[in-house]
Parts: sequence; structure tokens; C-alpha cells
Amino acid sequence: MARNSTGARERIIDGTTVLLRQGGYSAAGVNEVVAVSKAPKGSVYHYFPAGKEQFVSESLVNYEIAISTLIRSTLSDTSSLEKRVKKFFNRISQRMALSSFTQSCAVGATILSLPSGSELLQKQCSETLDVWANVAAECLVEVPKAKRACAARVLISLLEGAQISARASQSDRPLKEAAVCFLAFVKTLLPPN
Amino acid sequence: MARNSTGARERIIDGTTVLLRQGGYSAAGVNEVVAVSKAPKGSVYHYFPAGKEQFVSESLVNYEIAISTLIRSTLSDTSSLEKRVKKFFNRISQRMALSSFTQSCAVGATILSLPSGSELLQKQCSETLDVWANVAAECLVEVPKAKRACAARVLISLLEGAQISARASQSDRPLKEAAVCFLAFVKTLLPPN
Repeated sequence: MARNSTGARERIIDGTTVLLRQGGYSAAGVNEVVAVSKAPKGSVYHYFPAGKEQFVSESLVNYEIAISTLIRSTLSDTSSLEKRVKKFFNRISQRMALSSFTQSCAVGATILSLPSGSELLQKQCSETLDVWANVAAECLVEVPKAKRACAARVLISLLEGAQISARASQSDRPLKEAAVCFLAFVKTLLPPN
Repeated sequence: MARNSTGARERIIDGTTVLLRQGGYSAAGVNEVVAVSKAPKGSVYHYFPAGKEQFVSESLVNYEIAISTLIRSTLSDTSSLEKRVKKFFNRISQRMALSSFTQSCAVGATILSLPSGSELLQKQCSETLDVWANVAAECLVEVPKAKRACAARVLISLLEGAQISARASQSDRPLKEAAVCFLAFVKTLLPPN
């Protein structure tokens, strides 16, 4: 396979992710993906014969891995829980600021824009949020094991919601405030000193 | 104006709201609105000569009022803060359950799916979240005035994010957990006893 073609496949995946983060499922049509990835239209059909569902799905697989890595790298270092949680939300802020708050979570945007009949992608998005919550739960080592899953699910909800508010207000304040809220919540789950 | 036509206008607005709640901005095209509202296509152009931007905008105005009323009616009664916050999230759960978790917040879904160049709708969505936060802030009377605005903004972020998680998991658990998280956070803002 020529190097060029391999590049096209990756560019299609990466372009799809950008479009999903900007505008959700309907923003990631074949023509839009061709425009943003600068890949030949034929290569979209070549690499993704099943069409849009396929390149969206593969893009979301990559996105799941990228955010799992971000969660692990921020939440699992050796600093205090407060520092790690702030670092996590701060990293998300930086990602959003890079796009001037026009891009947020690809999964959140996809969930809210899937047409009916997209059961497979719906399931994939749901599983991705579960994966992220599981990764976060593993990192919240201060929280008693029985409460980690709940804490982690709330973290993911806060993350998704704060990104909506951040896009609306075009600022990182909602992400900073979400960090403070999550820390207050998680402290109630810690064992008494 | 004939009663029939008046009905068509309202049905277009209501149908648009359903479509926005299901799939965001791109789901609310003229053809989709005609199908869901059972209004004659001509009446869409008659009542909304500026097209999609106009009926989406008017639908969001109505939606802002409806959710402001919901916030006020749940958060401002005379029961404890805990009961009011749970009632608020519970009411949102009920609304989502009515659609089998296929519909969530029209504003959240619109923010994440607006095409670039939709500055007016972007501004409207942003202002709507501010209005809801202001209404909530007025109801959080236990919280010291200086901290009410922040508490209310976090409530709205949690609300938006928990709805994403609820759609993904097709369950009301994220909304219940969001209520618990918000209560833990808001307690840290209360004056010491």
C-alpha cells in the first residue's frame, strides 16, 4: 500500500474526529470529511466501504483511546487528588482553547445528534463513557473501592456538561468550576480521617 | 387568521423542539419539521420567512421559558435544599424517561451541533444557559449571595452532562448521581452552623 494512501486513511479518521467534536454526527458527512482531510473521495469509500457509520465508528475508537490516555496521565500521577483533578480539567480546557472553544467531546456531541436507528454507534458511545469512567475509577485510589465507580461516573458527567457550558460561554470557567464541584463531592466519599 | 393556521405555527415550534432535543440543530431541517409537525410545508415558509434559523430560534425561546419554569417550580418551594435539588433532577429524569431517553436538552444538543457561522443562535444558547443559571441562583437562597451564581452555573453544567450520560446509558442513574454530587458541592458553600 502506498504511503500516500496510508496517510489518507489516517487523515480521514482525524478529520472525522474534528468534525464530530465541532458538530456531532451530522457534521461528519462524506463531503465534509473529504474537505477537512484533503483525502480523495475515492479513498473514503476504499478504506471505509460501509460508509459514514464505519469512519465515524473508527474515529470514535481512536478518540476513546486518546481520552483514556489523557485521563490516566492526569489522574494517576503521584500528586494530591486536588492537583490531579485540577490537572485533568485543565488539560481538557487547553484542548478546547486550542479550537477557540469550537470543539468539545466527540462522544458527547455524537450522542446528542445520532439519528434514530444508529443503535451500534449509540452502544459504542455508551461503552466509551463506561470505559472512561472505569479508567478514572482506577485512578481515584483515595476513594473507597465501593464508591469509586459512582465518583468516576459523576466525573464524566461533569466533564461532558462543563464542555457544553464552556462552548456556550467560550471560556474555561465552567471547567474550573466543575473541578471544584467534583472535589467537594469526592471529599464526601473519602474515609473519615 | 384561521384557527388551523395558528395551530400549524405552534405545531411547527413544538415539532422543532422535539427534533432539537432528539438530534440537535441538523435534525431540525424544514422537511423533518414538516413531517413531525404535520404542518403544510407552505406554512413553515409563511410563518418563518427567514427559514430554519428563525423557527429554531423561536423554538429555543419557548424552551428557555419552559425550563425556567421547571427550575423555579422545583427549586423554589419551601422544602429543604436536598428535597428541592432531588425534585429538580427527578423532574428532568421524568421528562427524559417519557421519550425513553431519546430526548434531552434542546439547548445542549444545539450548542454541540451548530454549524460555524451561526453566531446568533450560538449567542442565544449561551444566554439561555445564563438565564437558567440566574433563575436557579435566585432559588438557592441557603447559599450566601456571593456564591450563588457559581453554584447555579455548576448546577446547569451538571444538568447538561448528566443528560448526556443518561442518554448514553438509557437510564436515570446519572441524574440521581448528579443530584448527590451537587448537594455535596453546595454544602461546602453554606455558612458554617
